Amino acid sequence: MINQMNIVIVGLGNIGSYFYNYLIKNKKILFNKTNTVPNILFVSAKSLGKKRSFKIPKKLWLKNCLLASKIKDVDIVVELIGGSEGIAKKLVFEALKNKKHVITANKALVAKYGNQLSKIAEINNVNFEFEAAVCGGIPIIRSIKEGLIANDISKIYGILNGTSNYILSSMDKNKLEYNNALSKAKVLGYAESNPASDINGEDVASKLKILTALAFNSFIDNKSILVEGIKNIDQIDINNANQLGFKIKLIGVAESDQNKITQRVHPALVEKNSYIAKINGVLNAVIVESDPVGKTVLQGEGAGPGPTTSSLVSDLCSILRGNVKFPFVLSDKKRQFASFANISNKKFSVYLRLDVKDIHGILSNITKVLATNKISVKRLIQNPTMNKKNASIVIITHEAKSSSFIKALATLKKKNYIVNNPKIIRIEKINVYR
Amino acid sequence: MINQMNIVIVGLGNIGSYFYNYLIKNKKILFNKTNTVPNILFVSAKSLGKKRSFKIPKKLWLKNCLLASKIKDVDIVVELIGGSEGIAKKLVFEALKNKKHVITANKALVAKYGNQLSKIAEINNVNFEFEAAVCGGIPIIRSIKEGLIANDISKIYGILNGTSNYILSSMDKNKLEYNNALSKAKVLGYAESNPASDINGEDVASKLKILTALAFNSFIDNKSILVEGIKNIDQIDINNANQLGFKIKLIGVAESDQNKITQRVHPALVEKNSYIAKINGVLNAVIVESDPVGKTVLQGEGAGPGPTTSSLVSDLCSILRGNVKFPFVLSDKKRQFASFANISNKKFSVYLRLDVKDIHGILSNITKVLATNKISVKRLIQNPTMNKKNASIVIITHEAKSSSFIKALATLKKKNYIVNNPKIIRIEKINVYR
Repeated sequence: MINQMNIVIVGLGNIGSYFYNYLIKNKKILFNKTNTVPNILFVSAKSLGKKRSFKIPKKLWLKNCLLASKIKDVDIVVELIGGSEGIAKKLVFEALKNKKHVITANKALVAKYGNQLSKIAEINNVNFEFEAAVCGGIPIIRSIKEGLIANDISKIYGILNGTSNYILSSMDKNKLEYNNALSKAKVLGYAESNPASDINGEDVASKLKILTALAFNSFIDNKSILVEGIKNIDQIDINNANQLGFKIKLIGVAESDQNKITQRVHPALVEKNSYIAKINGVLNAVIVESDPVGKTVLQGEGAGPGPTTSSLVSDLCSILRGNVKFPFVLSDKKRQFASFANISNKKFSVYLRLDVKDIHGILSNITKVLATNKISVKRLIQNPTMNKKNASIVIITHEAKSSSFIKALATLKKKNYIVNNPKIIRIEKINVYR
Repeated sequence: MINQMNIVIVGLGNIGSYFYNYLIKNKKILFNKTNTVPNILFVSAKSLGKKRSFKIPKKLWLKNCLLASKIKDVDIVVELIGGSEGIAKKLVFEALKNKKHVITANKALVAKYGNQLSKIAEINNVNFEFEAAVCGGIPIIRSIKEGLIANDISKIYGILNGTSNYILSSMDKNKLEYNNALSKAKVLGYAESNPASDINGEDVASKLKILTALAFNSFIDNKSILVEGIKNIDQIDINNANQLGFKIKLIGVAESDQNKITQRVHPALVEKNSYIAKINGVLNAVIVESDPVGKTVLQGEGAGPGPTTSSLVSDLCSILRGNVKFPFVLSDKKRQFASFANISNKKFSVYLRLDVKDIHGILSNITKVLATNKISVKRLIQNPTMNKKNASIVIITHEAKSSSFIKALATLKKKNYIVNNPKIIRIEKINVYR
């Protein structure tokens, strides 16, 4: 007797189409690897009748995708619709409730409803798999859940969004202004027509929340997270960073300190010669610090139909092989309501940029505001701007509490010599080499 | 009812001891993650009675380790003895034949007998796991078998041995001669008292053979592999490399070209600013090039009891969760006797160092030998040596066939103006960034 599992693919965008064709082409090799035939039973999408470069036999068409969760013969539902609400949410909840295995690439859904969904999956002894939701083709979820399962993770961080990283890279390499870099990313297919979540940090935030829960055996926490995007970074910042020996990257960081977990997504200055500074374009990289293994680095393609399919298929093979496991490493009963903290007590060194009117006594006033807030200056550069009446002051500070910077900034904003909103970018020390 | 699996640990060196204590300490958390209790039933080692910093209850002592494979209650045998023959071999064969799952860190054994062992495991439907045999704590085997299972791998390569990498790094950083760097590695516990296999490339060769079989769905091939160690690298080479913009690394590379697989282990010059050049000390890094995912990089600690235990436990949890799979990705029946080729037709650019008597007309003679063998010079530096009658000529060549270099070298060796054996180090272009 030959084992077989029946699959329904829901959603036929770039990724769904690539995944469908991959499965058709590689059915036999996947059987050889898993001892189970991956059989596409149905395909469902809003655009089923649409003309495409490949043909889907009519007998595979499933008009109402929600039926996928009700048909007895269906073993696995692959959700590739996207969005944390609506049909995607309904489909995934229904499928798991009806004891279907679920594979999804939907980070927004997993971040928002992962706690509930994983509980249903565990109760029904089915897999809820979402490797493709985090960092495209990098097997980071599998690595935390299986390869690094022995380890006590203290920190997980990296570059988790290809679109924003591409934009920052081209602002740096090609000296493009933000808007031009974004347009270029759209032309090349690296940014969607509505790239809001890539740019405002929300996409990284979703991924980070999922990684945090996996890494720290906790439930997903949607409240305590700092999220800042890259919209305010301009060519002047990129240039200043370069002059000071840094690159600017959008990073996601989750770490545990004295049993408090912090989650933060923000642009950061990283040393020019560091590993992370060289992760350019749509590449992603994740660094895991844990005991007893030490630092582990995983780098790869962060997006695109090929890399995403690589992850979807790794999830699929896990199911085909009968490798049922808890979706978030630990049984739902054993996961913790961990303590999350905001970062107000965390200390950073920062890059502070102040565009000011070039009048007498300003520097002394600024440094006084900083001193009052226990912030000391490590480096200061004053440059004239194009408008000669103004000047741009760039300060690299020593480490101080996050809350101190917020207070100092609030004071500075009110000063009549400040031309634009003062800007702060944190400096992050990341070193993966010896 | 609570699931439980019974484990026998055989071998109590650094790694065995660390693993034993880890399991004792983390029994509960591993149960929470896998839903199965990992119960140490027996421990066996030559040195059972020896005084140690921790105590092993007498009821756990198993004097004859081979009994582990015969005792009915034993589910999992963890072999940490080492060596490709003798008791380790006997134990692993017997255990698999008796339907026990086997976990081993023994790369020599897996490289030599992996084909047979994996067949027995498959027939008996038990796991044969060896994550710890390759690259310490880096989950590279699990990533090939699971995370990257969708992919067609064309090349896998990297720095696979911490000891030799530590030696080359300290020769470079601390300007140590080879022997002093080796001594330092021994003092720090990075090299064994007999470090032969780390230094002559055999350790990398064993790991590479395993990776090759996994990556290319082939049987392990012990014949077609080039193995060169680092013994001949001296401070002059390190210094020359630096002046030319390179670092010297011991690399292992397996690649498929026109359906022929080549395997090679040798020192190589890599560009100073490349990723791989910065992997120093006992770090390991593996790069996988595959379709559709692209390039994936995994970096981490290459050795030591902590990282090795991380891998052993990932294997253990896979078994505890009931994740039985083919040891080499594909069913034994479907694995191929792939075509392996030697590298004689492969083209390289090389670093060629000739120590010569400083007499008239030599340069013309050398370049003539090279030209006759279709090797053209890209860069040439002639330096006087300490002994002023001699000179050192360093040549960076354009690409030419491996076989051409062998012929040229054979001719040059016979020349009466050659003082020492001519030396060739291949130049490898490795780029993981954009």
